Order: sequence, then structure tokens, then C-alpha cells
Amino acid sequence: MDWKLSSHPHHTLQAQIVALITERIEQGDWVAGTRLPAQRELAMRFGVNRSTVQAALDELKADGLLETRRGSGAYVSGSAWNALLARSQPNWQRHIRTSVHRPNLHTIRLINESEPDPSFIRLGTGELSPELLPAKQLEQSLHDLKLDPRALGYSEPLGSLRLRLAICNKLAAIGIHAQPDHVCIVSGALQALQLISVGLLEERSAVFHESASYLNSVHPFQSAGMRMLTFQPDSSDARERLARAGSGRQSLLYAVPTLNNPTGRSWTGKERGAVYDACSDLRIPIVEDDVYRDLLFAPGLPPIKASDSSGQVLYLGSLSKSLSPGLRIGWIVAPSPVIARLADVKMQTDYGSSAFSQEIAAHWLESGLYAHNAWQLRSELQARAVFAEQALHDRFGEFADWEKPEGGFYIWLRFRHPIADKSFFRRLLDRKVLINPGYIYAPGDLHHIRFSYAYASQAEMITGLDILRDEVMRSLSNPNR
Amino acid sequence: MDWKLSSHPHHTLQAQIVALITERIEQGDWVAGTRLPAQRELAMRFGVNRSTVQAALDELKADGLLETRRGSGAYVSGSAWNALLARSQPNWQRHIRTSVHRPNLHTIRLINESEPDPSFIRLGTGELSPELLPAKQLEQSLHDLKLDPRALGYSEPLGSLRLRLAICNKLAAIGIHAQPDHVCIVSGALQALQLISVGLLEERSAVFHESASYLNSVHPFQSAGMRMLTFQPDSSDARERLARAGSGRQSLLYAVPTLNNPTGRSWTGKERGAVYDACSDLRIPIVEDDVYRDLLFAPGLPPIKASDSSGQVLYLGSLSKSLSPGLRIGWIVAPSPVIARLADVKMQTDYGSSAFSQEIAAHWLESGLYAHNAWQLRSELQARAVFAEQALHDRFGEFADWEKPEGGFYIWLRFRHPIADKSFFRRLLDRKVLINPGYIYAPGDLHHIRFSYAYASQAEMITGLDILRDEVMRSLSNPNR
Repeated sequence: MDWKLSSHPHHTLQAQIVALITERIEQGDWVAGTRLPAQRELAMRFGVNRSTVQAALDELKADGLLETRRGSGAYVSGSAWNALLARSQPNWQRHIRTSVHRPNLHTIRLINESEPDPSFIRLGTGELSPELLPAKQLEQSLHDLKLDPRALGYSEPLGSLRLRLAICNKLAAIGIHAQPDHVCIVSGALQALQLISVGLLEERSAVFHESASYLNSVHPFQSAGMRMLTFQPDSSDARERLARAGSGRQSLLYAVPTLNNPTGRSWTGKERGAVYDACSDLRIPIVEDDVYRDLLFAPGLPPIKASDSSGQVLYLGSLSKSLSPGLRIGWIVAPSPVIARLADVKMQTDYGSSAFSQEIAAHWLESGLYAHNAWQLRSELQARAVFAEQALHDRFGEFADWEKPEGGFYIWLRFRHPIADKSFFRRLLDRKVLINPGYIYAPGDLHHIRFSYAYASQAEMITGLDILRDEVMRSLSNPNR
Repeated sequence: MDWKLSSHPHHTLQAQIVALITERIEQGDWVAGTRLPAQRELAMRFGVNRSTVQAALDELKADGLLETRRGSGAYVSGSAWNALLARSQPNWQRHIRTSVHRPNLHTIRLINESEPDPSFIRLGTGELSPELLPAKQLEQSLHDLKLDPRALGYSEPLGSLRLRLAICNKLAAIGIHAQPDHVCIVSGALQALQLISVGLLEERSAVFHESASYLNSVHPFQSAGMRMLTFQPDSSDARERLARAGSGRQSLLYAVPTLNNPTGRSWTGKERGAVYDACSDLRIPIVEDDVYRDLLFAPGLPPIKASDSSGQVLYLGSLSKSLSPGLRIGWIVAPSPVIARLADVKMQTDYGSSAFSQEIAAHWLESGLYAHNAWQLRSELQARAVFAEQALHDRFGEFADWEKPEGGFYIWLRFRHPIADKSFFRRLLDRKVLINPGYIYAPGDLHHIRFSYAYASQAEMITGLDILRDEVMRSLSNPNR
């Protein structure tokens, strides 16, 4: 057992002891009935005061992980949960453990754990800064909400008709002509991917995605046992690749053709056409994730869905990026039999999305509040992008390259040397700077980080980028590199 | 192929044709490339106008199910979705199909399809009537909501701390002493069951439930491949039964000890103690579903969780029954390692519940609005229960028995003869009266229906019960019975 505690300023010694012991038990190393060393001995091994050990053990007892037997110290309790936690890994993870690189998962866990701590500077977060969220206007708009009692019951499977109509209107403006029964409301695009994975695909289906992909950082398809394969929209052999790997099997292609996460890149018209045609010929359905569209600084190409004559594109949108993640409102657009299937799965999962969120979303879309807010947001993000580019230029002009952002949150910063490894990430973490390294999105990629100008304030960006530069210099001067 | 259309007043002929053809394609009977009969022939077979056939085919084309080839009519299209829909059943259903009785599933589907139609009288619905939902007060309360911008971003894994604190306060009043890190916010109790199923259990684990059980009408455990076993809290062999069936395997016991769904019954103190002790000795975790507690007409026994010294009870609550289903707010209370695991699965599923719903829920709990509303609701439900009992007595006194309801929505009406079969259900359906037959909850039970006094108005109850009596008489006089 590892008895070494770190001097991490945000995890108390007590919390670290609790975590270490919990880990032993959860992993089944210490089974029910195991007697723990005496408090004095534990204190010595951990190198802490006995009172700290005592407090940690009390916490573990309160959680039911330990139990005391009169006069003979602490034992791993036989509480039923211990056994469950130890023996079973969540089913959703069973396929991930073997298929996704460990440093990837571990890095994501460290990011998730550190994000709530306000003392971290978050240079990679794919989320609007609280100051960019229209809290006051949302609060104000609640005064105008009229609640129909029928809307407060259990939802229809497809979600609020009023909201679906508002979404159809919004989609018409970008060339997608949908009726309300082609739309299913979901609690954000991630839920949409879960429903597609569980409701439409067989295990071991092939899911194509770009080589730097958001799907490597969340795992809706991997966790259901799909095989992940990469493709490149700009590659002339895309068609051949899809045909070879996908033939004879169920398959699906996932793409973010507008403002890709993490690269920020948008596909050209030629790429859109080529991928659509290839998928059309090969009967491969396309999931077009278009959640960043409303953050384009200048009008972009229409979505692939707009010229989908065969109904093979399943289109995803969301208000999480362009209004508020807390609403948990997104949508799927597809042929009605597909929508019916997905809505059915959704009802079995959570009986529909919040009626209040749906009413608020409908009100914002209908009233023009949404469009006005998105317009303001774009201009604020654009100002942030300009600032960020200058700050990057001043510090990394000689070491890194990037493309000018056309919208959204991200700059896919490419260091000329492969320095963005796990130790680089950890050194920055120790200095309270949180980055999203490229290897989260493209396993093995040590050249990139996903820089986000949407979250940190200007002052934080400067401080954070100075520290980032420090660590870049240290990596570059390291003879072991 | 079945070419017969019904004269169902709520499904147009066009819709029926669309449904029949879709079914053929989805079931893989008509594969891609199948040529449909000419419109004239279809019109003849269906016995409808050609224009109706034309309209149905147009709808199917718009959905991508059919395609036209110049001059040679309509073909089943090779659209990728058809193939997916035909070949794959949703994974969540793979275990249900073999393990749950068909009439059960089919009846539930018919109920779900009919419920949105306002011309049906709903005598079984487990949901508050719109007139019992405090729409005006909810609308008014939105004016008092103060939105912290940080609350509008992505949620913490466990959900809003403010709401978790409010829930801890609420729980203290019924003897459950929890800290915020013992609580995870979920989108209703059904989602809680899904998370438990996916996050804590291995496939083929044993899940114990009562023989008439809500779990037979939804399938969170069945769909993940668990083995469902029954137990009776009042049976002296409960312990032996749990021990025999559960030994050597992972298992879990699910119970609604207060106002059970569908029976409305509450366990005695002795039953609570016996089941807890048996599970304690056998290390079987208990899921205590307590969503009806706030609808007890008189104070009841405390939850099992209140005397849980070993942390083996996982406790579920919700605002869906006692405030509004549209909020989609419920909670799980458990030891913190269990909560951490479930919260992790929840984040991977939908990134948390609606921030707006969470804020509204916290405001209602903190301000006393919730308690006041629940008090009013109880008195309205009690008045409905009295009315319903009189109406039942007048019509079914000689044919049926039931227990006086102690709260909640339900009367578990027992006919002395086994008449409540599928055909009984269908005859009532044809007469626009929707009942929840007992066999949904207890496979093979033809004696019971779950009568709900929470949804239909008094006038509807009278009309509906008169029709119900008619059909009961018809069943009783049927010599084939």
C-alpha cells in the first residue's frame, strides 16, 4: 500500500487518508472483516497526527465503510455497498477500460476534480464564463412565463410541442425544414448521443469520428461497446476508408462540421459534399453535431442536414453553448420513425426533460431574446478571441502555431515540439493552471492543447499563459525530452 | 399482411396506413428495394380512396422510408435508418423481450399511446390531475427566483448544494440525518433506478421486489439484464427466500414500504424491521422508494432509512408526486462513496439536472411553499378518496373488495372473479376508458386493477366507473369465462 500523502494544498491530509483507504476497499484489496492497523501505527505510517487519523476513521465509519468492534479497533465493514462498489464496475464503463488510453481517462478525472476549485485558472474549459451567461435577463424573463398546468405534468415523449415548433422555426433559417414530429427534445447533446448509442446501434457497431474528437473525452459510444474508427473529411481516401471498415456491419459517422471540438475548424463545402455522398452511397447514417453554429463570428456554410435528401442525417443542436448549460436543453432532428424510437428510449430513461427548462427555452426562442443574446455573445467571444490571439502571439509566436478562430470557444494550439504530455499537464496542475491537453481528444497527440478563450477572464488568461510559457520553456530545455 | 384498417375514431385512415407500412419495414418484412403494390391496388386492399393512399405514401417518402423511381412506383428506400431500425432493437430492451409478458408490454404501450388523447377517461393514471398542480403559485414563485450566474453553468456532479441542503433539512424531519455529500440530485426516481442499475449492479444480479410491483411496469433493472425475484414482507419465509435465492450472488431489494405502487399499502413496523434485519444479516442492500410519503393522509411510520445504522439503505425521494412531475427533480440518499459513483454515472449520462428546476425546487422547499402545497394536496386527495370509495361502493360493493386508502393516489381494486384480462382492458379502451389492469404489475393477476383517484375529475370518475361496471357485468355474464 502507498502510505505517502502529498502536500497538495487543496486536499487535506484527512481527505487524502480517507481517499486512500476508500480506494483499497473499493478495489477489493481490503475485504470485509479486514482489521486496520492501530491508530498509532497508521499515524506513523502516514506521518500525521493521531487526531488526523482518528478524524479520517470517523468519517469512514459514518460512511459505513468501517466499523468498530469494542476494544479491538477498526475493521472494514461488511456493509453491502462495499461489496457492490468493489465487485462491480459500472456497466457503462466496461468497454472503456480496455479501449481508451489510461492517461486520457486519468487526466479527464483530474480536470473534473479541479474545475470546481475557484483558485484554478481554467485555460481549457469548454463552457461559457459565468460572466457571459445572461443570468439577469433569464431571471427577468421568468416574470413573463405563463405556465399551463398541463405542461407541468409528465412530458409527451417528444417533448413540449411549443418548444419543438420554436426549434422548427429556428432550423428553417439555416435551411432545415422539419416538422415537430421530426424533433425530440433532450437534456443536452450528450444525452442525444447516449440515446442514439443505446437506441439505434448494436454492440460492436463501427462509429467513425475525426481523429481529434470530442468523443474521446466523453464516451457515449465506447461505453456501449462500439468500435471507434477515424476518418478525415479532407482525405481523398475517406470514401475508401469508410467502405473498407464499415462494410458488412452497422456503422455510423459522427461529425462536428462547423466549429469542431477541439480543433475549432469548419469543414469546407467540398468536404461536406464528399462525406455526405460517400455516406449516402454506403448507407452510413451521419450524426451532425451542430451545437456551436450560433457562435460563428460570420455566417458559415449551411449544415449538411440542409441538403439531406435521403433523411440519413441525424442533426443535433443545443442551448448549452449559446445560452446556458444549466437549462439542459438540446434537440435531435431525424425522420419520424427514428425520433419515435429515440423518444421511447428517453421516456424509459428519465420521463422527459424539465418542463420549466422547456418553457424557458421556448420563450427565449419565440421572443427573440435568444437571438439577441447570441448576437451579443458572438461579439463578446470575438473580442476575447482577439485578445487571446495577441496574448498567444506574444508568448508562443516562436514555439507554436494556430489558426485564427472563426467562432466558438477554442484555439487548437500546436506546439512545434511534442511537449504536451501528462507530466506537462501535471506540472501546470500543480501551479493551479488547468489545460485540456490534446491527447484527451487525439490519443497520443503531444503537440496540441485545446485553448479556450470562453472561460478565463483577461487577467486570468495573462497569468495562466505566463505560467504556461514557463512550463513550455522548461520542457523545451529539458535534455531528457 | 394485415390489410384491415379499424374505424378507430382517433387514428385517421392515412395514419393507419402509414403505421402498417412502417411496421412492415421496421420489422424487416419489407427490405430495402421492395416494390410496393400500385396505388390503385393498395387503395382496393385497404378499402380507401386513392387520394388517402397517395397522402400516406407521401408521408412515408418524407420520412425517408419510401423512395420513388421514375415511372415505376414506390420502393422501400435503402435509407440507412431503415436498416438500423430494422436490425437493432434498443439495447435496453434486449433483456425485457424474453423476460416480461407480452400482454404486459403491449398494454403499457396502448396506455401510453392513449393517455395524451383528452377524450379518454383515465381511471388508472399515476399522476396528479392538472387541476391539482399549483401552476399559478409556481408561476408566481418564479418572480422571487434569484439566479446566481454560477448556477447556470454545468452542474456539480451531486447537483445544486443549495437544493441538497434543503433536502437534508426536509429529511431530518422524518428521522434521516444526511449531509449534502450523501445526496445526489436526479431527474426523478426512475432515473435513480437507472443509475443504480447501471452503476452498481452486475448483469444477472438478483433484484427482489414485491409480487405486485411498479418495477413490472417500467424496466430499469430488467433492461440491464437483472433477474427479478419476488418476496413478501409479511411472509415468515421472507428471510429464507432472500437467503436461498440471493446467496452467492450480488443482489438488491427494492421496496416501496410507504404507500406502495400499485397496492397503496404501507408496511407495518414489524415488516419493516424484519426485512431490514434479514437484509442486514444477508448483506443485501435495500432501495427504499419513498416518493409517496408526503401524500400520507395521517403521519405514518418513519422510513426504514431512519433506523439504518449500517448504511445499507439507499433512499429515494421525488417532487413528481407531491409537487409537479414536470420539474423532474428527485434525490438519492446513500453513503458518500455510493453517491459519488452514481453521480459520476449521471454526469456521463446527461451532465446533471436542469439548474432551473433545481433552483425552483430549492426555493419551494426553503420557503415553505412546498410544505403548504403538500398539505393542501393531501386534503384534496383525501376528499377525492372519499368520493371514489363511495362511487366504488355503489357500483362494485358486491363484486369487488379494497382497502381504505391511507394516502397517495391508488386503490388496489380486487374483483372476486378473475375478469381483468386483456380483452376486458381492450373493451374499456374501445369505450374510451383507460384502466391500469393488475397484470401490468403482477404478471398473471386477473383479479385487480389499479384505480387512481388522482387524475380523473369527479364527473369523469362517475362516467368511467359506470362504463367499468357495464363491462364487469358483461364479463361476469359471459359463459366462456
